[in-house]
Amino acid sequence: MATTNLLPPSLAFSKTYNPPEIRANPTVGLRLPICKRQEGVLRLRAVLSDKTRTVDAVSTKFSHCFKKSEDGFLYCEDTKVQDIMDSVEKRPFYLYSKTQIARNVEAYRNALTGLNSIIGYAVKANNNLKILEFLRESGCGAVLVSGNELKLALHAGFDPTRCIFNGNGKTLEDLVLAAEAGVFINVDSEFDLENIVTAARIVGKNIPVLLRINPDVDPQVHPYVATGNKNSKFGIRNEKLQWFLDAVKSHPNELKLVGAHCHLGSTITKVDIFRDAAVLMVNYIDQIREQGFQIDYLNIGGGLGIDYHHTGAVLPTPMDLIDTVRELVLSRNLNLIIEPGRSLIANTCCFINRVTGVKTNGTKNFIVIDGSMAELIRPSLYGAYQHIELLAPPLPDAEISTFDVVGPVCESADFLGKDRELPTPEKGAGLVVHDAGAYCMSMASTYNLKMRPPEYWVEDGSVVKIRHGETFEDHLRYFEGL
Amino acid sequence: MATTNLLPPSLAFSKTYNPPEIRANPTVGLRLPICKRQEGVLRLRAVLSDKTRTVDAVSTKFSHCFKKSEDGFLYCEDTKVQDIMDSVEKRPFYLYSKTQIARNVEAYRNALTGLNSIIGYAVKANNNLKILEFLRESGCGAVLVSGNELKLALHAGFDPTRCIFNGNGKTLEDLVLAAEAGVFINVDSEFDLENIVTAARIVGKNIPVLLRINPDVDPQVHPYVATGNKNSKFGIRNEKLQWFLDAVKSHPNELKLVGAHCHLGSTITKVDIFRDAAVLMVNYIDQIREQGFQIDYLNIGGGLGIDYHHTGAVLPTPMDLIDTVRELVLSRNLNLIIEPGRSLIANTCCFINRVTGVKTNGTKNFIVIDGSMAELIRPSLYGAYQHIELLAPPLPDAEISTFDVVGPVCESADFLGKDRELPTPEKGAGLVVHDAGAYCMSMASTYNLKMRPPEYWVEDGSVVKIRHGETFEDHLRYFEGL
Repeated sequence: MATTNLLPPSLAFSKTYNPPEIRANPTVGLRLPICKRQEGVLRLRAVLSDKTRTVDAVSTKFSHCFKKSEDGFLYCEDTKVQDIMDSVEKRPFYLYSKTQIARNVEAYRNALTGLNSIIGYAVKANNNLKILEFLRESGCGAVLVSGNELKLALHAGFDPTRCIFNGNGKTLEDLVLAAEAGVFINVDSEFDLENIVTAARIVGKNIPVLLRINPDVDPQVHPYVATGNKNSKFGIRNEKLQWFLDAVKSHPNELKLVGAHCHLGSTITKVDIFRDAAVLMVNYIDQIREQGFQIDYLNIGGGLGIDYHHTGAVLPTPMDLIDTVRELVLSRNLNLIIEPGRSLIANTCCFINRVTGVKTNGTKNFIVIDGSMAELIRPSLYGAYQHIELLAPPLPDAEISTFDVVGPVCESADFLGKDRELPTPEKGAGLVVHDAGAYCMSMASTYNLKMRPPEYWVEDGSVVKIRHGETFEDHLRYFEGL
Repeated sequence: MATTNLLPPSLAFSKTYNPPEIRANPTVGLRLPICKRQEGVLRLRAVLSDKTRTVDAVSTKFSHCFKKSEDGFLYCEDTKVQDIMDSVEKRPFYLYSKTQIARNVEAYRNALTGLNSIIGYAVKANNNLKILEFLRESGCGAVLVSGNELKLALHAGFDPTRCIFNGNGKTLEDLVLAAEAGVFINVDSEFDLENIVTAARIVGKNIPVLLRINPDVDPQVHPYVATGNKNSKFGIRNEKLQWFLDAVKSHPNELKLVGAHCHLGSTITKVDIFRDAAVLMVNYIDQIREQGFQIDYLNIGGGLGIDYHHTGAVLPTPMDLIDTVRELVLSRNLNLIIEPGRSLIANTCCFINRVTGVKTNGTKNFIVIDGSMAELIRPSLYGAYQHIELLAPPLPDAEISTFDVVGPVCESADFLGKDRELPTPEKGAGLVVHDAGAYCMSMASTYNLKMRPPEYWVEDGSVVKIRHGETFEDHLRYFEGL
């Protein structure tokens, strides 16, 4: 049965709280309590090395790498988040579970068993170099949308032949970089094709391209993250397909057509629409092949949603997604490219804040935290819901009220959550915003001169810094020598 | 008559195009055409040194420091923007008129003639160090909303006794910095007062504070920028005033109450609401003085809107704003603090982009540019309108169509303008987004690894870089040594 839980029930955390042992953690220079459940870890490794389909066997119960233990504290895997918050040098901060990243990749790898495929991680979701390196080690390719993302992917060691350069407004400068690197390029429009041809001539290489076709399928998501319907700025129109095929034919030295691409949007929670799109795309591929093109790649983009609401909703898994297109892909002997971003990284991370204070204006109650829309803009920008909870048990007499959770940024757009029922926290209490791995840090600004926060991950019970926090001196550097 | 034009008609740009003389510009290392109108500059200086009210005499016609000349090119003051775009090392970029900043300050200084006052520039609108230094030289104080903004203001040489530290979620750490610096602090809530007392004890200083009272006035603006109504997270409730006065009285060693503060919101286009709020505030001040407090400061915040639509709308000037409160302020012998951000800096700047290409999806036409929501998020975040035009005359046969102006960022939220009627531009054409001085660069992110752009201003006919562009290497630095 389809669930969001990628772990067998035997790996769910014990309901019995084991008091943490204290041990020195060299990484953050402080003693952190670690309560590891070695048996679970060992069994997890066994699952990770098993290439057969384990996902069918998972529990239907909601589970998460960040979860409350019976002591009322939040744990990241087996490490108490309160202790991490108390030990790091700067707050707010982002905290990841490295193991959850591995689990998420594994879910896709399991789903793709038996298919020729590329898991093209969408770097725009999260461009942390350490995360990229880990995803590359785990076998992922990369989907890139700017010259800098391309440079970063190469820096992280990605194999260019497992990278795809995407986007509606690729500049000639960036296309030249892409041509030099030898990555796949998705053709988005007439002018984009012209620029790709120019880049090929500049570099003197034949570029492997896919045509990004706008299938006009409604993904039933927020308009800001819908990208494959008729109002979209992305992709080429169906009725223009022949023009593009003719253009490719007339540039045999510059372009080699290798496949077709579509991308419907993001935060998608129904896999039938992937199926609908894939049926259309395979028809296009048939038509294209009939004209003598040897094309092997079907790129169905990304966009799988996650359970932001933590209500235990039964969302489609990678397996559900791939199952809807598997037979189609096999029937045409295609290489399948997928472009997951959110579903690989979003649920691996929490944004950890500290409560500055609680206030009421008579009409509304507010929990004021040190994090803000500067570090995490999804709620303001998309009206997105991200689950919020306190990371320690409240005081016994803490009143449960409805709060807006707001930051210190001087405007009313600065909220992380609206109308959340929470126990009244004490000043200094930790508050986490869940599922903050995708489109959070990568969209962070320094508005109000709130510098971008550091990032850490939990790895084998240790807390390891994976990104330095931005400093005031970093801001001053932009004016040096002027 | 109230207008947005702060220049006497004699200083409006000539309708006759004078071909530019070419001279070497050492700043950008390229020859830039400069066509200065010395007479106008001299007369402007005469106005700037005149402290009498010159604003009453201004033309009612819309004018702007960025305007089209009869040759069809856009000029920043007397410098052709096309030439600047062709000469700078990186695009997109922000371009300011230093003279317009001076004019905007002067409009406030004129309006405040005869009043004891502080023009507290709201640093959050734009935190460019060079701009801050210039505003400080021009006599402004600073309004700060974070410890880093405070550090930056001190770095820029602002007099701490002309600075105000504001915000609903000031951390203890930042309050300690503020106490050490000796700036005014606005008290926002019960917990904020507690933290201010703690900071005073840590530093061993008596802190001059103002009470931020939420007057519950509807500013009739976007909910995200309304901050003085009953749903707001900001300020203390009227009925709680006595609690705060008692709290101040009971901390004579830590707190010295010097005034009252309110802030209604942003982008306000009707000054009566400032009057309404000031009447309420002066009543509070009377009540507070009756209890023996010697308070001298009325801080009416900021929030004056600008003519983003460029339709020549008659918007209130600084003079109109101050005129509504002048007699009230004088009647109580108060020092007036105002907190302009947008109205000082927004209209001094354009965001300059280059067209990557034009496409249609059959339903909609798109101009795709190199700038995006990463550099300028106001349209996406607030649905804000910023005027857009091409910076060079179109080709004679260019069709005028309705376009969405979009960036290369991979999501549908990435637009700078919707449904804009524009001549179809050529690839490489310059396209400007007007009024980009406030809440644009200060909110920029590096989403899609689009690094934050450089900034320039035009100063006496020269183009001077005032901020370095962020580089790919700046991103890598966050991972060095990990």
